[in-house]
Amino acid sequence: MVEGPFLLYLGDKSNPLDVKTSRGLATFRSNDCIGEFREDSCPLTLGLPRMDVTQAVAAGARSLVLGIATSGGRIEEAMVPHILAALDADLDVVSGLHQRLDADPRIVERAKANARRLIDVRLAPRDLRVGTGQRRPGRRLLTVGTDCAVGKMYTSLALVAGMHERGMAARFRATGQTGVLIAGEGIVIDSVIADFISGAAEALSPAREDGGWDVIEGQGSLFNPSFAGVSLGLLHGAQPDALVLCHDPSRPHMRGLAHMPVPDLAICMAENLRCVRLTSPEAQFVGVSINGSQMDPAKASDLRARIEDELGLPCIDPVATGTGPILERIAARFPS
Amino acid sequence: MVEGPFLLYLGDKSNPLDVKTSRGLATFRSNDCIGEFREDSCPLTLGLPRMDVTQAVAAGARSLVLGIATSGGRIEEAMVPHILAALDADLDVVSGLHQRLDADPRIVERAKANARRLIDVRLAPRDLRVGTGQRRPGRRLLTVGTDCAVGKMYTSLALVAGMHERGMAARFRATGQTGVLIAGEGIVIDSVIADFISGAAEALSPAREDGGWDVIEGQGSLFNPSFAGVSLGLLHGAQPDALVLCHDPSRPHMRGLAHMPVPDLAICMAENLRCVRLTSPEAQFVGVSINGSQMDPAKASDLRARIEDELGLPCIDPVATGTGPILERIAARFPS
Repeated sequence: MVEGPFLLYLGDKSNPLDVKTSRGLATFRSNDCIGEFREDSCPLTLGLPRMDVTQAVAAGARSLVLGIATSGGRIEEAMVPHILAALDADLDVVSGLHQRLDADPRIVERAKANARRLIDVRLAPRDLRVGTGQRRPGRRLLTVGTDCAVGKMYTSLALVAGMHERGMAARFRATGQTGVLIAGEGIVIDSVIADFISGAAEALSPAREDGGWDVIEGQGSLFNPSFAGVSLGLLHGAQPDALVLCHDPSRPHMRGLAHMPVPDLAICMAENLRCVRLTSPEAQFVGVSINGSQMDPAKASDLRARIEDELGLPCIDPVATGTGPILERIAARFPS
Repeated sequence: MVEGPFLLYLGDKSNPLDVKTSRGLATFRSNDCIGEFREDSCPLTLGLPRMDVTQAVAAGARSLVLGIATSGGRIEEAMVPHILAALDADLDVVSGLHQRLDADPRIVERAKANARRLIDVRLAPRDLRVGTGQRRPGRRLLTVGTDCAVGKMYTSLALVAGMHERGMAARFRATGQTGVLIAGEGIVIDSVIADFISGAAEALSPAREDGGWDVIEGQGSLFNPSFAGVSLGLLHGAQPDALVLCHDPSRPHMRGLAHMPVPDLAICMAENLRCVRLTSPEAQFVGVSINGSQMDPAKASDLRARIEDELGLPCIDPVATGTGPILERIAARFPS
């Protein structure tokens, strides 16, 4: 649906979490990423050549990807001139924001004038139904988190890659805008109508009879008061057999909410198990995944050992350690 | 926004729960309800004169209200001829369904030809933001339930009426299509984008400094796998001081889900308290509200006594007993 190569938009963002989608593409579809567009004030880089839209087109780019997070998912006014310039330069524009590109008449008009496409990744399918909680065959793993943006997508993709390496049938099921862009399919679950959250999760990972795994990207956290409803509906609809808890030890408080503490890992696991049992009475945790990118490596290693000890589960960092210990646990607990 | 008098549509529905919106209007805006439209096969009545659209217009009706529930909130094909006939007869058409009236070109064309309005109550406000969980002043009561359609709206409206009788400042905050039609304002919270559930609840009942109560209509149930995400987001966003548990003892299983049992009242309360504490650490239950309409009165009375005994809370039936005992509990626990 989305045509590469991509020019990845960073704008004027200074918080690494705000360029998560652009970074996800740079990491997981690196062959399709040709450059990054950023303002002089932007201190971030994805390690790609900095380009404007004209340079990107000359280098072969087909799409500008607005891979950033903004307040409320709006298209900020400062972004509009760059979007228009991209359309004039003959790029398609791809957005993972809530606000639809076609909600701005200036953008619509310019896309039309240049015969370019406007692609909103968050547009939910039209034929969703409410969830039923009815059990369905198949093995499913869901990543859950102490907060949003702690590594659930990264961990899910790494687990699928690890399963493939071991010859296991496995499929990544994307639930966020970055994941959908990477996978080329999925449902941005925080964009569906609230009544259909669990139904969307059921539709996303239907009955599966081949013994393989659906690895479902989690969203938000039961402990994040902005998004917990999405997390709960996903938990009920996913009907996971296996859960992996994702956590960023460097997070001082819930993202963007200075008044909300990050939950204790054991409490977070217990609450997820309590909630998931409504539709998946046998669900169990098979591991913890730490995002140690902001930590001293030795301290991160100590932390992982302590978590393994306290929780009795393998604790990995998908970048530093790989996913092996969790995959071994899965093999032991779910023999084929 | 919606013009009475109303002709209330029952269609061919045979389950009383499926005509909840029409019945809500007949009960709480009885002066505005002039007749009911039903097929010969419909065994239900709201006690209003049966009319076709022409008769309704002759009697003074201004709007046809599609106050029914359908699978997935769709406009069923059998409804379309009646909608077109209503528009031809010069009625506005009001819908609480998910599927928008203007999604059907036949309906749009006919409305245009007759210069009538199509009103979708579920259309969410455009300017919603994600919730923050930040504490705000004001006293708020939220009704929660063992399931959906157990009497949360009815109980909320009865509590507001009782508060007004006692001279308390109180306002009903509608979160469902029926409630919004009755109140003339509100947000149909299961229709907002999933990311904005708790934010919509925060917007619906903003900071309040007069010592009065916002009585917020609950939705769904934490134990209903179709809608629990909505219930959780509402719980977090509402920041209730007081909770009332609503229950229909005649429900054999969760609505429409024969495989899902109705939760035990004490377990349901404990789970709501556990979840609500994320944003409202001091929230407490102030009563239980039973829908005893399908029960023998003596048995219903025994059941209420047993619940009071077991849970140590007043147990009312808003129709049979009024809301007095819960209002007394509120007065005692929240002195003005």
